[in-house]
Amino acid sequence: MADRDRAGGSLVDRLAGEMRQRIASRGLVPGAKLPSIRALAESGGVSKSTAVEVYDRLVAEGVIQSRRGSGFYVAGHTPPLSVADVGPRLDRAIDPFWVSRQSLEAGDDVLKPGCGWLPPSWLPEDGLRRSLRTLARANGNALVDYGTPLGLPALRQLLARRMAERGIEASPDQILITESGTQAIDLLCRMLIEPDDVVLVDDPCYFNFHALLRAHRARIIGIPFTPNGPDMDAFAAALEAHRPRLYVTNSGIHNPTGATLSHATAHRLLKLAEAHDLTIIEDDIFADFEEDPAPRLGALDGLDRVIQIGSFSKALSASVRCGYVAIRHDWMERLVDLRIATSFGAPRLSAELVVRTLQDGSYRKHVAALRERLARARLRTAQHLDEIGISRWIEPRAGMFLWCSLPDGVDAAELARAALADGVLLAPGNVFSLTQSAGRFLRMNVAQCGDPRIFRVLSDRVARA
Amino acid sequence: MADRDRAGGSLVDRLAGEMRQRIASRGLVPGAKLPSIRALAESGGVSKSTAVEVYDRLVAEGVIQSRRGSGFYVAGHTPPLSVADVGPRLDRAIDPFWVSRQSLEAGDDVLKPGCGWLPPSWLPEDGLRRSLRTLARANGNALVDYGTPLGLPALRQLLARRMAERGIEASPDQILITESGTQAIDLLCRMLIEPDDVVLVDDPCYFNFHALLRAHRARIIGIPFTPNGPDMDAFAAALEAHRPRLYVTNSGIHNPTGATLSHATAHRLLKLAEAHDLTIIEDDIFADFEEDPAPRLGALDGLDRVIQIGSFSKALSASVRCGYVAIRHDWMERLVDLRIATSFGAPRLSAELVVRTLQDGSYRKHVAALRERLARARLRTAQHLDEIGISRWIEPRAGMFLWCSLPDGVDAAELARAALADGVLLAPGNVFSLTQSAGRFLRMNVAQCGDPRIFRVLSDRVARA
Repeated sequence: MADRDRAGGSLVDRLAGEMRQRIASRGLVPGAKLPSIRALAESGGVSKSTAVEVYDRLVAEGVIQSRRGSGFYVAGHTPPLSVADVGPRLDRAIDPFWVSRQSLEAGDDVLKPGCGWLPPSWLPEDGLRRSLRTLARANGNALVDYGTPLGLPALRQLLARRMAERGIEASPDQILITESGTQAIDLLCRMLIEPDDVVLVDDPCYFNFHALLRAHRARIIGIPFTPNGPDMDAFAAALEAHRPRLYVTNSGIHNPTGATLSHATAHRLLKLAEAHDLTIIEDDIFADFEEDPAPRLGALDGLDRVIQIGSFSKALSASVRCGYVAIRHDWMERLVDLRIATSFGAPRLSAELVVRTLQDGSYRKHVAALRERLARARLRTAQHLDEIGISRWIEPRAGMFLWCSLPDGVDAAELARAALADGVLLAPGNVFSLTQSAGRFLRMNVAQCGDPRIFRVLSDRVARA
Repeated sequence: MADRDRAGGSLVDRLAGEMRQRIASRGLVPGAKLPSIRALAESGGVSKSTAVEVYDRLVAEGVIQSRRGSGFYVAGHTPPLSVADVGPRLDRAIDPFWVSRQSLEAGDDVLKPGCGWLPPSWLPEDGLRRSLRTLARANGNALVDYGTPLGLPALRQLLARRMAERGIEASPDQILITESGTQAIDLLCRMLIEPDDVVLVDDPCYFNFHALLRAHRARIIGIPFTPNGPDMDAFAAALEAHRPRLYVTNSGIHNPTGATLSHATAHRLLKLAEAHDLTIIEDDIFADFEEDPAPRLGALDGLDRVIQIGSFSKALSASVRCGYVAIRHDWMERLVDLRIATSFGAPRLSAELVVRTLQDGSYRKHVAALRERLARARLRTAQHLDEIGISRWIEPRAGMFLWCSLPDGVDAAELARAALADGVLLAPGNVFSLTQSAGRFLRMNVAQCGDPRIFRVLSDRVARA
């Protein structure tokens, strides 16, 4: 008879389950050698015969393979994983990929207040159509040849000017054009961190930071987030306790809360970063949504230990893939080499389109109108939510997100599952929370809240919970 | 007095140099903890006082930092590296980044027989201009919204049909659209290998495979390449000796040699791969250049353990970033999640442009004309090279590359340095060779050899060597 643990489950079940999970989450990859029977028995605190049973079962399932005289290995052809099997999973609905995949895959019949971008009709289609026509008449090299390693000079110059308007001094040769904001962070992680390095994020934060940092095998530590930025006492304690290499944040209009950094927090944060030699990636992807810019770490620090990234997916187009990094000059060479190694050329045609669209006089008008439209949508959405008894954590100064607190007894993940059955995609709070401490929160995208059915479904589901 | 090694150099010099090199090549990254004084002394076979001297010197240089009571760490703000400092470097001119960076950065006045792509005037600019105009009238979502996670369905269907023509059965849901062929391989490496896993490549092979695999911290083993494909005895021996996880090759029209796989080699290779549970990435980036397709591993294997990747950079446009992966169905979910984590959306606008251009009747005509033009250029270039006493390793059946053998006593890296001073960018053989065994070879791109000055410079420099 197999050992049993205190919870009454079979130890074989538990150990086999843990190993399946490590394989599913890539903690162990196809072909990796597994611990010996003896080592498994010791680390699991079980008898050798129990360890043998665990491996026998996983061999029978095809998850691992036994190689004669050599030991046990993760099977080469690992069985397919469902999305929910990837990464730590405290609750099926709150997997970081859940909202991404649902948002990208949902048909046009699904309402998407949980998604992280604007509806297509809010974006400057006409400007893009004009840019495409202009580009069709451009010099042939722009259409067919690789660009320069840093990316299109005209776009880098334009970005340098835009950053200067926000108090960030970056010369064009401190700017690298990337395929997206996400790729920008990914490249930086490749340059800056090693497996098992500690990285700080906000709790809550943009959920894809978790997925991205896990792909780099970082150890992620969440810092509680306040309406003024990260909790500075917790931040200081984490620096002491974990010696992190990196802090990744979007300080501008924080995702998911919509909060902005206070000057005091920004200043204290940079002092701590300096004392602990911490590098900071400041994701400024929502910069265009802000009328009066809140403090930016990159501006205060002069891009010394802060690296800014951004993209054009949010205010211009998500179809045109283009992002950027602004970084201290002496770190650029290595970044360029890494980019060539891992994706070769800069996205030239996308950059040509972006620079034409940004230079078009209509873009500033579009952005100004967008800010007002978002302000109205925030107000209107807040009123609807008030009626259902859903309150806001803060009233954001800008942006598309409201971080909403559900009435007592309503669990956001359960609500999201139920609402999806009604054709409404929500973003439950724990998707954004490393510590799973946001189970009563929802991130609402006000630009996607125009359809009154959303509030009928919410009201109905909240009442039933 | 410090210890001295047999070569007469100071041991402090040698150990400090080795550590600088490990830091420069990212073997040790900013913040990484260094071995203790005692460990350094033991591993370096030196006294503890010598080890102390090594660290003192590196601290003085700012390369490493001492933290009281804790030991030595790589400095956070590592000094800038020159390109040539990255990665193993047996010869300054043969760094894998040398050709990439020179090719991407060289002005229009530099002649580039060493670069890896066609001149802009050889690419279908008119087709792209038409596609841009069509796209300017497309449905707005195509211009501004994210695409589906796998990428544009119309392009995946078209790719599935094109692959079927070459005997590769892949359904559209086995195809993932990526930003580039390089990004496709990078994503696959993320899924398939761990740091220190062994990966086989051809020797010689496309130089960026070395850079990419180093970014993944793989241990790279080169297999000597023959006119029929990799040397199968060496391949079998490497499988036994190193238990590699992965083999990365471009078997179609091999870069840099222009060779194609024989049926016998392909068959034996796949049998060995099966016996050793080896996964293969087949980079089919030159597929469009071939009239009668040579054997493809992906076709023979039915995309079981072979994964094919490709892109449109070579025959269509390098400005429009778009590539793809064709992979067994049950590996797709994990690949998609990794892509979302590391670059989020698929390149939608690029895919819309590519599919329109490929569907345009003119594309097949362009490709047919391109093949003939390349055949003529291969002949003409070969004649010019014959006159200088530069011979070919083989006469390739297709493609833009000739793998050329220099007369006795001429070193390709020295020739490349000298030619660059004359405004001619060459690709010296050792850039492609892990074992640095191609010092007498050059890769010549016949499409970039139209200017007679190239042969004058070659002739002159060869005569002087």
